[in-house]
Amino acid sequence: MNAEHARPVGRGAKVRAAVHAATLAELAEKGYATLTVDGVAQRAGVHKTTVYRRWKDRESLVVDALAGHVAADIPIPDTGTFETDLRALARALVRMMTAASARALLAAVFSDAARLSEVAEVRRQIFDDRLRRAEPVVTRAVSRGELPAGTDAAEVIRSLAAPVYLRLLMTVEPVDEAVADQAVRVTLAAARAGAFSPTGLSAPGPLVVHG
Amino acid sequence: MNAEHARPVGRGAKVRAAVHAATLAELAEKGYATLTVDGVAQRAGVHKTTVYRRWKDRESLVVDALAGHVAADIPIPDTGTFETDLRALARALVRMMTAASARALLAAVFSDAARLSEVAEVRRQIFDDRLRRAEPVVTRAVSRGELPAGTDAAEVIRSLAAPVYLRLLMTVEPVDEAVADQAVRVTLAAARAGAFSPTGLSAPGPLVVHG
Repeated sequence: MNAEHARPVGRGAKVRAAVHAATLAELAEKGYATLTVDGVAQRAGVHKTTVYRRWKDRESLVVDALAGHVAADIPIPDTGTFETDLRALARALVRMMTAASARALLAAVFSDAARLSEVAEVRRQIFDDRLRRAEPVVTRAVSRGELPAGTDAAEVIRSLAAPVYLRLLMTVEPVDEAVADQAVRVTLAAARAGAFSPTGLSAPGPLVVHG
Repeated sequence: MNAEHARPVGRGAKVRAAVHAATLAELAEKGYATLTVDGVAQRAGVHKTTVYRRWKDRESLVVDALAGHVAADIPIPDTGTFETDLRALARALVRMMTAASARALLAAVFSDAARLSEVAEVRRQIFDDRLRRAEPVVTRAVSRGELPAGTDAAEVIRSLAAPVYLRLLMTVEPVDEAVADQAVRVTLAAARAGAFSPTGLSAPGPLVVHG
Protein backbone atom coordinates (compact mmCIF):
# COMPACT_ATOMS: atom_id res chain seq x y z
CA MET A 1 0.00 0.00 0.00
CA ASN A 2 2.94 2.36 -0.16
CA ALA A 3 3.01 4.96 -2.92
CA GLU A 4 5.89 3.69 -5.04
CA HIS A 5 4.12 0.37 -5.47
CA ALA A 6 0.68 1.82 -6.18
CA ARG A 7 -1.25 -0.12 -8.83
CA PRO A 8 -4.65 0.24 -10.51
CA VAL A 9 -7.42 -0.77 -8.07
CA GLY A 10 -8.62 -3.62 -10.30
CA ARG A 11 -5.35 -5.49 -10.11
CA GLY A 12 -4.90 -4.81 -6.37
CA ALA A 13 -8.35 -6.21 -5.61
CA LYS A 14 -7.68 -9.29 -7.73
CA VAL A 15 -4.37 -9.98 -6.00
CA ARG A 16 -6.01 -9.50 -2.64
CA ALA A 17 -8.82 -11.93 -3.46
CA ALA A 18 -6.40 -14.51 -4.82
CA VAL A 19 -4.15 -14.27 -1.76
CA HIS A 20 -7.15 -14.49 0.59
CA ALA A 21 -8.47 -17.58 -1.18
CA ALA A 22 -5.02 -19.20 -1.18
CA THR A 23 -4.61 -18.47 2.54
CA LEU A 24 -7.94 -20.10 3.41
CA ALA A 25 -7.18 -23.09 1.21
CA GLU A 26 -3.75 -23.61 2.81
CA LEU A 27 -5.24 -23.25 6.30
CA ALA A 28 -8.00 -25.73 5.58
CA GLU A 29 -5.69 -28.30 3.99
CA LYS A 30 -2.57 -28.07 6.11
CA GLY A 31 -3.51 -26.20 9.26
CA TYR A 32 -2.01 -23.04 10.65
CA ALA A 33 1.28 -24.31 12.03
CA THR A 34 2.78 -25.19 8.65
CA LEU A 35 1.31 -22.24 6.74
CA THR A 36 3.98 -20.08 5.12
CA VAL A 37 3.86 -16.85 3.12
CA ASP A 38 5.83 -18.74 0.43
CA GLY A 39 3.20 -21.46 0.20
CA VAL A 40 0.37 -18.93 0.01
CA ALA A 41 2.15 -16.87 -2.67
CA GLN A 42 2.84 -19.96 -4.77
CA ARG A 43 -0.74 -21.13 -4.54
CA ALA A 44 -2.07 -17.66 -5.40
CA GLY A 45 0.33 -17.39 -8.34
CA VAL A 46 1.97 -14.17 -7.12
CA HIS A 47 5.47 -13.28 -5.97
CA LYS A 48 6.31 -13.55 -2.28
CA THR A 49 7.29 -9.86 -2.24
CA THR A 50 3.79 -8.97 -3.47
CA VAL A 51 2.37 -10.65 -0.37
CA TYR A 52 4.87 -9.04 2.01
CA ARG A 53 4.14 -5.62 0.49
CA ARG A 54 0.50 -5.91 1.64
CA TRP A 55 0.73 -8.02 4.80
CA LYS A 56 3.59 -7.74 7.25
CA ASP A 57 3.56 -11.37 8.40
CA ARG A 58 1.55 -14.58 8.24
CA GLU A 59 -0.51 -13.68 11.31
CA SER A 60 -1.87 -10.51 9.70
CA LEU A 61 -2.39 -12.43 6.44
CA VAL A 62 -4.53 -15.06 8.19
CA VAL A 63 -6.55 -12.54 10.19
CA ASP A 64 -7.20 -10.41 7.11
CA ALA A 65 -8.20 -13.41 4.97
CA LEU A 66 -10.68 -14.62 7.58
CA ALA A 67 -12.09 -11.15 8.23
CA GLY A 68 -12.51 -10.57 4.48
CA HIS A 69 -14.59 -13.68 4.26
CA VAL A 70 -16.85 -12.65 7.11
CA ALA A 71 -18.09 -9.75 4.99
CA ALA A 72 -19.64 -12.22 2.52
CA ASP A 73 -23.15 -12.47 3.85
CA ILE A 74 -26.54 -14.02 3.22
CA PRO A 75 -29.53 -12.11 1.84
CA ILE A 76 -32.16 -11.25 4.45
CA PRO A 77 -35.62 -12.28 3.18
CA ASP A 78 -38.80 -10.19 3.43
CA THR A 79 -41.52 -12.44 2.00
CA GLY A 80 -44.48 -11.20 4.06
CA THR A 81 -44.82 -14.08 6.55
CA PHE A 82 -42.58 -15.29 9.36
CA GLU A 83 -42.64 -18.91 8.24
CA THR A 84 -41.56 -18.21 4.66
CA ASP A 85 -38.92 -15.69 5.83
CA LEU A 86 -37.55 -18.24 8.28
CA ARG A 87 -37.43 -20.95 5.63
CA ALA A 88 -35.66 -18.70 3.11
CA LEU A 89 -33.15 -17.67 5.78
CA ALA A 90 -32.42 -21.24 6.95
CA ARG A 91 -32.00 -22.52 3.40
CA ALA A 92 -29.70 -19.62 2.49
CA LEU A 93 -27.61 -20.32 5.59
CA VAL A 94 -27.31 -24.00 4.64
CA ARG A 95 -26.36 -23.15 1.03
CA MET A 96 -23.74 -20.69 2.19
CA MET A 97 -22.22 -22.85 4.93
CA THR A 98 -21.94 -25.92 2.69
CA ALA A 99 -20.15 -24.05 -0.11
CA ALA A 100 -16.49 -25.02 -0.48
CA SER A 101 -15.31 -21.56 0.60
CA ALA A 102 -17.27 -21.70 3.87
CA ARG A 103 -16.00 -25.18 4.62
CA ALA A 104 -12.47 -23.86 4.13
CA LEU A 105 -13.29 -20.91 6.37
CA LEU A 106 -14.62 -23.14 9.18
CA ALA A 107 -11.68 -25.51 8.90
CA ALA A 108 -9.35 -22.51 9.13
CA VAL A 109 -11.13 -20.99 12.09
CA PHE A 110 -10.92 -24.34 13.90
CA SER A 111 -7.21 -24.91 13.29
CA ASP A 112 -4.23 -24.06 15.50
CA ALA A 113 -4.82 -20.50 14.21
CA ALA A 114 -7.75 -20.29 16.65
CA ARG A 115 -5.11 -19.60 19.31
CA LEU A 116 -4.56 -16.13 17.80
CA SER A 117 -6.98 -13.88 19.65
CA GLU A 118 -7.82 -12.04 16.42
CA VAL A 119 -8.95 -15.31 14.87
CA ALA A 120 -11.13 -16.12 17.86
CA GLU A 121 -12.64 -12.67 17.38
CA VAL A 122 -13.27 -13.32 13.68
CA ARG A 123 -15.06 -16.53 14.57
CA ARG A 124 -17.33 -14.63 16.92
CA GLN A 125 -17.99 -12.01 14.24
CA ILE A 126 -18.84 -14.57 11.56
CA PHE A 127 -21.79 -15.47 13.64
CA ASP A 128 -22.70 -12.18 15.33
CA ASP A 129 -22.79 -10.03 12.20
CA ARG A 130 -25.07 -12.49 10.51
CA LEU A 131 -27.24 -12.63 13.61
CA ARG A 132 -27.77 -8.89 13.83
CA ARG A 133 -28.56 -8.55 10.14
CA ALA A 134 -31.26 -11.23 10.26
CA GLU A 135 -33.12 -9.81 13.27
CA PRO A 136 -35.64 -7.77 11.19
CA VAL A 137 -37.19 -11.09 10.10
CA VAL A 138 -38.33 -11.50 13.71
CA THR A 139 -39.16 -7.89 14.55
CA ARG A 140 -41.34 -7.62 11.42
CA ALA A 141 -43.19 -10.81 12.45
CA VAL A 142 -43.83 -9.32 15.89
CA SER A 143 -45.19 -6.10 14.39
CA ARG A 144 -47.45 -8.10 12.04
CA GLY A 145 -48.84 -9.88 15.14
CA GLU A 146 -47.46 -13.27 14.11
CA LEU A 147 -45.33 -13.63 17.24
CA PRO A 148 -45.75 -12.58 20.89
CA ALA A 149 -44.53 -9.10 21.82
CA GLY A 150 -41.12 -9.21 23.47
CA THR A 151 -39.88 -12.12 21.33
CA ASP A 152 -36.08 -12.08 21.53
CA ALA A 153 -34.98 -11.73 17.89
CA ALA A 154 -31.35 -12.70 18.51
CA GLU A 155 -32.42 -15.88 20.34
CA VAL A 156 -34.79 -16.86 17.52
CA ILE A 157 -32.02 -16.56 14.92
CA ARG A 158 -29.62 -18.51 17.15
CA SER A 159 -32.21 -21.27 17.49
CA LEU A 160 -32.57 -21.43 13.70
CA ALA A 161 -28.82 -21.59 13.08
CA ALA A 162 -27.75 -23.79 16.01
CA PRO A 163 -28.67 -27.21 14.52
CA VAL A 164 -26.90 -26.29 11.28
CA TYR A 165 -23.68 -25.41 13.10
CA LEU A 166 -24.00 -28.44 15.38
CA ARG A 167 -23.95 -30.71 12.33
CA LEU A 168 -21.15 -28.80 10.61
CA LEU A 169 -18.90 -28.68 13.65
CA MET A 170 -19.66 -31.59 15.97
CA THR A 171 -21.56 -34.44 14.41
CA VAL A 172 -20.21 -34.02 10.87
CA GLU A 173 -23.49 -35.15 9.36
CA PRO A 174 -24.74 -34.03 5.95
CA VAL A 175 -26.28 -30.56 6.04
CA ASP A 176 -29.02 -30.08 3.47
CA GLU A 177 -32.41 -28.50 2.86
CA ALA A 178 -34.10 -31.06 5.13
CA VAL A 179 -31.91 -29.88 8.03
CA ALA A 180 -32.89 -26.28 7.26
CA ASP A 181 -36.59 -27.13 7.13
CA GLN A 182 -36.45 -29.09 10.40
CA ALA A 183 -34.76 -26.11 12.09
CA VAL A 184 -37.62 -23.94 10.79
CA ARG A 185 -40.29 -26.27 12.23
CA VAL A 186 -38.68 -26.24 15.67
CA THR A 187 -38.00 -22.50 15.79
CA LEU A 188 -41.43 -21.64 14.40
CA ALA A 189 -43.29 -23.82 16.91
CA ALA A 190 -41.21 -22.50 19.82
CA ALA A 191 -41.57 -18.85 18.74
CA ARG A 192 -45.35 -19.17 18.32
CA ALA A 193 -45.63 -20.80 21.75
CA GLY A 194 -43.78 -17.84 23.28
CA ALA A 195 -40.60 -19.72 24.21
CA PHE A 196 -38.50 -16.72 23.10
CA SER A 197 -40.45 -14.09 25.00
CA PRO A 198 -40.06 -13.38 28.72
CA THR A 199 -43.74 -13.87 29.52
CA GLY A 200 -44.33 -16.96 27.40
CA LEU A 201 -44.30 -20.52 28.70
CA SER A 202 -43.66 -19.80 32.35
CA ALA A 203 -46.17 -22.55 32.96
CA PRO A 204 -46.20 -25.63 30.72
CA GLY A 205 -48.01 -24.77 27.48
CA PRO A 206 -50.94 -26.76 26.09
CA LEU A 207 -50.19 -29.92 24.19
CA VAL A 208 -51.18 -29.11 20.63
CA VAL A 209 -50.60 -32.41 18.88
CA HIS A 210 -51.05 -35.59 20.81
CA GLY A 211 -50.33 -39.21 19.75
CA MET B 1 2.22 -53.05 27.70
CA ASN B 2 4.90 -55.69 27.07
CA ALA B 3 5.51 -58.27 29.79
CA GLU B 4 8.95 -57.21 31.00
CA HIS B 5 7.60 -53.75 31.85
CA ALA B 6 4.41 -54.99 33.51
CA ARG B 7 3.38 -52.90 36.53
CA PRO B 8 0.56 -53.07 39.06
CA VAL B 9 -2.73 -51.91 37.48
CA GLY B 10 -3.03 -48.98 39.88
CA ARG B 11 0.16 -47.34 38.74
CA GLY B 12 -0.51 -48.04 35.05
CA ALA B 13 -3.92 -46.39 35.27
CA LYS B 14 -2.46 -43.38 37.07
CA VAL B 15 0.26 -42.90 34.46
CA ARG B 16 -2.30 -43.26 31.71
CA ALA B 17 -4.59 -40.64 33.26
CA ALA B 18 -1.69 -38.24 33.86
CA VAL B 19 -0.43 -38.61 30.28
CA HIS B 20 -3.95 -38.17 28.87
CA ALA B 21 -4.49 -35.01 30.90
CA ALA B 22 -1.08 -33.63 29.91
CA THR B 23 -1.79 -34.37 26.23
CA LEU B 24 -5.12 -32.51 26.32
CA ALA B 25 -3.54 -29.58 28.17
CA GLU B 26 -0.68 -29.32 25.66
CA LEU B 27 -3.12 -29.54 22.74
CA ALA B 28 -5.37 -26.87 24.18
CA GLU B 29 -2.53 -24.49 25.01
CA LYS B 30 -0.16 -24.93 22.09
CA GLY B 31 -2.10 -26.70 19.37
CA TYR B 32 -1.29 -29.95 17.63
CA ALA B 33 1.56 -28.92 15.37
CA THR B 34 4.02 -28.17 18.16
CA LEU B 35 2.93 -31.00 20.47
CA THR B 36 5.80 -33.38 21.29
CA VAL B 37 6.03 -36.60 23.30
CA ASP B 38 8.81 -34.88 25.28
CA GLY B 39 6.54 -31.97 26.22
CA VAL B 40 3.73 -34.29 27.24
CA ALA B 41 6.05 -36.50 29.34
CA GLN B 42 7.51 -33.47 31.08
CA ARG B 43 4.09 -32.04 31.86
CA ALA B 44 2.83 -35.42 33.14
CA GLY B 45 5.95 -35.86 35.27
CA VAL B 46 6.95 -39.17 33.68
CA HIS B 47 9.89 -40.32 31.58
CA LYS B 48 9.67 -40.09 27.81
CA THR B 49 10.33 -43.83 27.57
CA THR B 50 7.28 -44.48 29.75
CA VAL B 51 5.17 -42.69 27.15
CA TYR B 52 6.76 -44.47 24.18
CA ARG B 53 6.24 -47.83 25.88
CA ARG B 54 2.48 -47.25 25.81
CA TRP B 55 1.94 -45.15 22.67
CA LYS B 56 3.94 -45.62 19.52
CA ASP B 57 3.85 -41.99 18.37
CA ARG B 58 2.21 -38.65 19.08
CA GLU B 59 -0.71 -39.39 16.72
CA SER B 60 -1.77 -42.47 18.70
CA LEU B 61 -1.21 -40.53 21.93
CA VAL B 62 -3.57 -37.75 20.83
CA VAL B 63 -6.24 -40.09 19.51
CA ASP B 64 -6.14 -42.20 22.68
CA ALA B 65 -6.28 -39.16 24.99
CA LEU B 66 -9.30 -37.75 23.16
CA ALA B 67 -11.09 -41.09 22.95
CA GLY B 68 -10.49 -41.69 26.66
CA HIS B 69 -12.18 -38.44 27.44
CA VAL B 70 -15.22 -39.24 25.34
CA ALA B 71 -16.03 -42.06 27.75
CA ALA B 72 -16.67 -39.50 30.52
CA ASP B 73 -20.38 -39.02 30.25
CA ILE B 74 -23.34 -37.23 31.81
CA PRO B 75 -25.97 -38.92 33.97
CA ILE B 76 -29.28 -39.56 32.20
CA PRO B 77 -32.16 -38.30 34.39
CA ASP B 78 -35.43 -40.13 35.04
CA THR B 79 -37.48 -37.71 37.16
CA GLY B 80 -40.96 -38.68 36.00
CA THR B 81 -41.77 -35.77 33.69
CA PHE B 82 -40.33 -34.72 30.36
CA GLU B 83 -39.80 -31.11 31.40
CA THR B 84 -37.81 -31.92 34.55
CA ASP B 85 -35.80 -34.62 32.74
CA LEU B 86 -34.99 -32.16 29.96
CA ARG B 87 -33.94 -29.49 32.47
CA ALA B 88 -31.68 -31.89 34.40
CA LEU B 89 -30.11 -33.06 31.15
CA ALA B 90 -29.48 -29.55 29.80
CA ARG B 91 -27.99 -28.34 33.08
CA ALA B 92 -25.75 -31.42 33.34
CA LEU B 93 -24.56 -30.84 29.77
CA VAL B 94 -23.73 -27.21 30.56
CA ARG B 95 -21.87 -28.17 33.76
CA MET B 96 -19.87 -30.80 31.93
CA MET B 97 -19.02 -28.72 28.86
CA THR B 98 -17.90 -25.71 30.89
CA ALA B 99 -15.53 -27.73 33.09
CA ALA B 100 -11.85 -27.04 32.40
CA SER B 101 -11.28 -30.56 31.07
CA ALA B 102 -14.07 -30.25 28.50
CA ARG B 103 -12.81 -26.86 27.35
CA ALA B 104 -9.39 -28.44 26.86
CA LEU B 105 -11.01 -31.30 24.96
CA LEU B 106 -12.91 -28.96 22.64
CA ALA B 107 -9.86 -26.80 22.04
CA ALA B 108 -7.90 -29.95 21.20
CA VAL B 109 -10.54 -31.32 18.88
CA PHE B 110 -10.62 -27.99 17.04
CA SER B 111 -6.86 -27.68 16.55
CA ASP B 112 -4.70 -28.72 13.61
CA ALA B 113 -5.15 -32.23 15.05
CA ALA B 114 -8.66 -32.21 13.54
CA ARG B 115 -6.94 -33.07 10.26
CA LEU B 116 -6.25 -36.57 11.61
CA SER B 117 -9.24 -38.64 10.53
CA GLU B 118 -9.26 -40.43 13.91
CA VAL B 119 -9.67 -37.10 15.68
CA ALA B 120 -12.55 -36.12 13.40
CA GLU B 121 -14.10 -39.47 14.31
CA VAL B 122 -13.61 -38.80 18.05
CA ARG B 123 -15.34 -35.44 17.65
CA ARG B 124 -18.31 -37.15 16.06
CA GLN B 125 -18.38 -39.75 18.84
CA ILE B 126 -18.26 -37.15 21.62
CA PHE B 127 -21.61 -36.03 20.44
CA ASP B 128 -23.19 -39.22 19.10
CA ASP B 129 -22.57 -41.40 22.14
CA ARG B 130 -24.07 -38.80 24.42
CA LEU B 131 -27.01 -38.45 22.04
CA ARG B 132 -27.87 -42.11 22.00
CA ARG B 133 -27.61 -42.47 25.77
CA ALA B 134 -30.06 -39.58 26.37
CA GLU B 135 -32.76 -40.82 24.02
CA PRO B 136 -34.75 -42.69 26.74
CA VAL B 137 -35.69 -39.27 28.19
CA VAL B 138 -37.75 -38.74 25.04
CA THR B 139 -39.04 -42.26 24.49
CA ARG B 140 -40.28 -42.40 28.10
CA ALA B 141 -42.11 -39.08 27.60
CA VAL B 142 -43.78 -40.47 24.49
CA SER B 143 -44.92 -43.61 26.33
CA ARG B 144 -46.28 -41.47 29.19
CA GLY B 145 -48.33 -39.57 26.58
CA GLU B 146 -46.47 -36.30 27.16
CA LEU B 147 -45.27 -36.07 23.56
CA PRO B 148 -46.78 -37.05 20.19
CA ALA B 149 -46.12 -40.60 18.99
CA GLY B 150 -43.31 -40.71 16.45
CA THR B 151 -41.32 -37.93 18.15
CA ASP B 152 -37.73 -38.24 16.90
CA ALA B 153 -35.69 -38.71 20.09
CA ALA B 154 -32.32 -38.00 18.47
CA GLU B 155 -33.62 -34.75 16.99
CA VAL B 156 -35.01 -33.62 20.35
CA ILE B 157 -31.66 -34.17 22.08
CA ARG B 158 -29.85 -32.37 19.24
CA SER B 159 -32.21 -29.43 19.61
CA LEU B 160 -31.48 -29.26 23.34
CA ALA B 161 -27.71 -29.40 22.90
CA ALA B 162 -27.34 -27.26 19.77
CA PRO B 163 -27.56 -23.79 21.42
CA VAL B 164 -25.01 -24.88 24.04
CA TYR B 165 -22.50 -25.97 21.40
CA LEU B 166 -23.24 -22.90 19.27
CA ARG B 167 -22.16 -20.68 22.16
CA LEU B 168 -19.14 -22.80 23.04
CA LEU B 169 -17.84 -23.06 19.50
CA MET B 170 -19.01 -20.10 17.45
CA THR B 171 -20.17 -17.12 19.44
CA VAL B 172 -17.91 -17.68 22.47
CA GLU B 173 -20.57 -16.31 24.83
CA PRO B 174 -20.90 -17.37 28.47
CA VAL B 175 -22.65 -20.72 28.85
CA ASP B 176 -24.59 -21.03 32.09
CA GLU B 177 -27.79 -22.36 33.63
CA ALA B 178 -29.85 -19.65 31.90
CA VAL B 179 -28.65 -20.96 28.52
CA ALA B 180 -29.64 -24.49 29.57
CA ASP B 181 -33.09 -23.36 30.71
CA GLN B 182 -33.72 -21.39 27.53
CA ALA B 183 -32.80 -24.47 25.46
CA VAL B 184 -35.34 -26.42 27.53
CA ARG B 185 -38.13 -23.89 26.87
CA VAL B 186 -37.54 -24.01 23.11
CA THR B 187 -37.19 -27.78 22.84
CA LEU B 188 -40.15 -28.40 25.14
CA ALA B 189 -42.48 -26.06 23.22
CA ALA B 190 -41.39 -27.49 19.86
CA ALA B 191 -41.71 -31.11 21.03
CA ARG B 192 -45.18 -30.54 22.51
CA ALA B 193 -46.28 -28.85 19.26
CA GLY B 194 -45.18 -31.92 17.31
CA ALA B 195 -42.24 -30.27 15.51
CA PHE B 196 -40.15 -33.43 16.02
CA SER B 197 -42.74 -35.89 14.74
CA PRO B 198 -43.45 -36.56 11.08
CA THR B 199 -47.17 -35.79 11.33
CA GLY B 200 -46.94 -32.70 13.54
CA LEU B 201 -47.00 -29.12 12.30
CA SER B 202 -47.56 -29.76 8.62
CA ALA B 203 -49.94 -26.81 8.82
CA PRO B 204 -49.09 -23.75 10.94
CA GLY B 205 -49.89 -24.51 14.58
CA PRO B 206 -52.10 -22.31 16.76
CA LEU B 207 -50.59 -19.23 18.33
CA VAL B 208 -50.57 -20.00 22.04
CA VAL B 209 -49.29 -16.75 23.50
CA HIS B 210 -50.06 -13.53 21.74
CA GLY B 211 -48.79 -10.04 22.51
